[in-house]
Amino acid sequence: MKLIKIILPLLFITQLAMGQSVDSLQIRKIYDEALVNGHTYRNLEYLCKQIGPRLSGSVGAQKAVDWTKKLMEEYGFDRVYLQEVMVPHWVRGEKEEAKILVDNKSINVPIAALGGSVATPKKGLKAPVIEVQSLNELKSLGEAQIKGKIVFFNRAFDPKPIETGVSYGMAGDQRRAGPSEAAKYGAVGVIVRSLTHSIDDYPHTGSTTYDEKGVKIPAAAISTKAANELSRLLKLKSANPVQFYFKQNCETLPDALSYNVIGEIKGSELPEQIITVGGHLDSWDLAEGAHDDGTGVMQSVEVLRIFKAINYRPKNTIRAVLFMNEENGLRGGQKYAELAKINQEKHLAALESDAGGFTPRGFGFDAPENLYKQLKGNWQKLFEPYDADRLSFGGGGADIGPLKRTVPGVVLIGYRPDSQRYFDIHHTPNDVFENVNKRELELGAAAMASLVYLIDQTGLKF
Amino acid sequence: MKLIKIILPLLFITQLAMGQSVDSLQIRKIYDEALVNGHTYRNLEYLCKQIGPRLSGSVGAQKAVDWTKKLMEEYGFDRVYLQEVMVPHWVRGEKEEAKILVDNKSINVPIAALGGSVATPKKGLKAPVIEVQSLNELKSLGEAQIKGKIVFFNRAFDPKPIETGVSYGMAGDQRRAGPSEAAKYGAVGVIVRSLTHSIDDYPHTGSTTYDEKGVKIPAAAISTKAANELSRLLKLKSANPVQFYFKQNCETLPDALSYNVIGEIKGSELPEQIITVGGHLDSWDLAEGAHDDGTGVMQSVEVLRIFKAINYRPKNTIRAVLFMNEENGLRGGQKYAELAKINQEKHLAALESDAGGFTPRGFGFDAPENLYKQLKGNWQKLFEPYDADRLSFGGGGADIGPLKRTVPGVVLIGYRPDSQRYFDIHHTPNDVFENVNKRELELGAAAMASLVYLIDQTGLKF
Repeated sequence: MKLIKIILPLLFITQLAMGQSVDSLQIRKIYDEALVNGHTYRNLEYLCKQIGPRLSGSVGAQKAVDWTKKLMEEYGFDRVYLQEVMVPHWVRGEKEEAKILVDNKSINVPIAALGGSVATPKKGLKAPVIEVQSLNELKSLGEAQIKGKIVFFNRAFDPKPIETGVSYGMAGDQRRAGPSEAAKYGAVGVIVRSLTHSIDDYPHTGSTTYDEKGVKIPAAAISTKAANELSRLLKLKSANPVQFYFKQNCETLPDALSYNVIGEIKGSELPEQIITVGGHLDSWDLAEGAHDDGTGVMQSVEVLRIFKAINYRPKNTIRAVLFMNEENGLRGGQKYAELAKINQEKHLAALESDAGGFTPRGFGFDAPENLYKQLKGNWQKLFEPYDADRLSFGGGGADIGPLKRTVPGVVLIGYRPDSQRYFDIHHTPNDVFENVNKRELELGAAAMASLVYLIDQTGLKF
Repeated sequence: MKLIKIILPLLFITQLAMGQSVDSLQIRKIYDEALVNGHTYRNLEYLCKQIGPRLSGSVGAQKAVDWTKKLMEEYGFDRVYLQEVMVPHWVRGEKEEAKILVDNKSINVPIAALGGSVATPKKGLKAPVIEVQSLNELKSLGEAQIKGKIVFFNRAFDPKPIETGVSYGMAGDQRRAGPSEAAKYGAVGVIVRSLTHSIDDYPHTGSTTYDEKGVKIPAAAISTKAANELSRLLKLKSANPVQFYFKQNCETLPDALSYNVIGEIKGSELPEQIITVGGHLDSWDLAEGAHDDGTGVMQSVEVLRIFKAINYRPKNTIRAVLFMNEENGLRGGQKYAELAKINQEKHLAALESDAGGFTPRGFGFDAPENLYKQLKGNWQKLFEPYDADRLSFGGGGADIGPLKRTVPGVVLIGYRPDSQRYFDIHHTPNDVFENVNKRELELGAAAMASLVYLIDQTGLKF
């Protein structure tokens, strides 16, 4: 034991002499804590397995609020509290049914109502189908071709972009705006090809947004395999047109009271200046919400836990914010931004993890270009040994986005894990704890803690 | 159609004018082919599901030889042929049995004989257990403590290294040399903690090497959960010492005839100069050998297929080499190197993919430092848009390693995918096709093809 007491400080001095900075040693400490003693994985297991789905307004969402508050209290953070926020309360109702009907045959296919969708008539909705690839094609077909039909948006994910989020962005208008646009031309319902590269049997749910002044027609996601089959059948010459039948009894209830859950370590030098690190606590009703976004919230809590565990006392106040209602309303993010303005809070930076708990690649920065160049120049080499050194220009996240409007000057940062597997499971029942790798998750938490440490140390001044 | 014919060349010219090099356009073409029309995933599915396990000397290995030869012939490569090689032929026999015996209780635990191990006596082997953490501890205990016992090597993977291969390297001596060393002190058997970070119920097999002059004692891997339980029981005070029982009837048969499978595209300018790209065709008997190394062989074949598909005629001869017997002998790699010398072949570079079909990070180079710096300086930016730009110093692979001794000057390169998930499934029945992500696999093939293209274009001269 005595020998160790002598050797360890010597090692420390030697490492410094060998050109390793205090920062690189501190980051190594952060990683060691995350990888050797990390709590992220066990916390995520609890959230997924003991609580599970937690769509805004649900019992699961309330349980997640209560448990994460208690968890952060038990960690002994300086302050743990809730922010009230009224959230949309949509419920799926019974499991949906759907069939392709062609020439006296009836083929069952997997669908899932889009979040926010209205129900079909009680006995379901049956109509001829028309396939379109885009909102533009819909427009060009017009009322003459669309009226009375179920519109089938079938534009596939483009495989060419390297980041899968780009493909998601390119295909996403079909789900978000498709139902509302199709209604304008007299469509009676909409089915949307699931937003994924994967060819499988899982419908991927997700929000759609109706034009408040327009007619609301029922809308559902269909699995990619079923979409391919439907498209194939539509191309065959048949005596009768292909029809589609689906039944869903989802509904939107009155807004419900819910909460953002916040934990803080108070700054030792600039307690009034805040660095936020967060993810969203709500998930889709079909999933455990492991990667979306259980990983992000548990990593955010872990950042603060690591700081306490390694006795790092930050200069600024560090806040873990578990946002409510990212999936279907963003009310938590908006409330957080609104209160920041009302309370005249000073925000240095906000970091969001909402792209899955996959192996880290780096971070994207929404900052003045000059500042971005400085921080990249100073920090990239520190992340290199951890394969998390891709510091790119442009970034942020849905929940921290509103902060930019209410607190000008705040630097927004998106945590960037590898994107390849995310949309295989996104918004499906496959988004479960078992699909999260412990080390990938922990490395993400360590990368996030390291970045928050560097922001805290520098105050973003170089 | 006509418009496209006009626009595409214009786009090409515009891209050139915008500073995109011919190389970057060619690489984009390679990626598009891999991602849009790729065959890697379907070929891997065939190898895993129609052929499956393919340990050297097995029926599966021969089927894999026949099928990959036929596949490359069907692709129309310029030359497809086999290289004869005699390989070890070890067979596991019946499924192993094992129990922890403590105070009249008997606890079944999952084990798997190490590759190359001898059998236990027919009725199994029962003896008191002694746990050690290292070969050094074994030595310090000596014959007094070890004789007549089953030695339990239980040093866990170190979680701190970022690359999991480092932890594998640090723990691997227990499996490779443990049985042989323990026999020197009179041990009657050896069980080794599975070489993985994961705490689960799967024993991870793998080769052990006996000292040819020593006593050969039976050796098996035990799952990490069972290892933790056994270690816990050994620490309890008990009236009777903890005993371990295991039964395995594996054996080593006479060497068998097998083959390296080789496909070539002949160089248009320097046909006598060879660039090798390869992986190993054999796998452990317990697994489909998806990541180890079905991905590597199918990616290697894909490199040549992509070149043909995009009409790229290489200057040098490009060879896909599917090595036999990496897992328990390396005879294929040795034969390839030996024949290269005998035939006075000229080898420019050899690239190996044997670290799993995970998302690409980059490549490691075993090259003169000056050359490494030049190629990094010239190529890194080309791989940046594909997140595969980690070009590190030092690399290679087991199968291409022997080439360095027989063809001095050849540059050896290891393909580096992300390493986090590899050892979760390595050498277990979980190494199946379902655990491979299509895009990660395809991105790897594209990165490899892009690197081979750059080597071919430059001849490694800058």
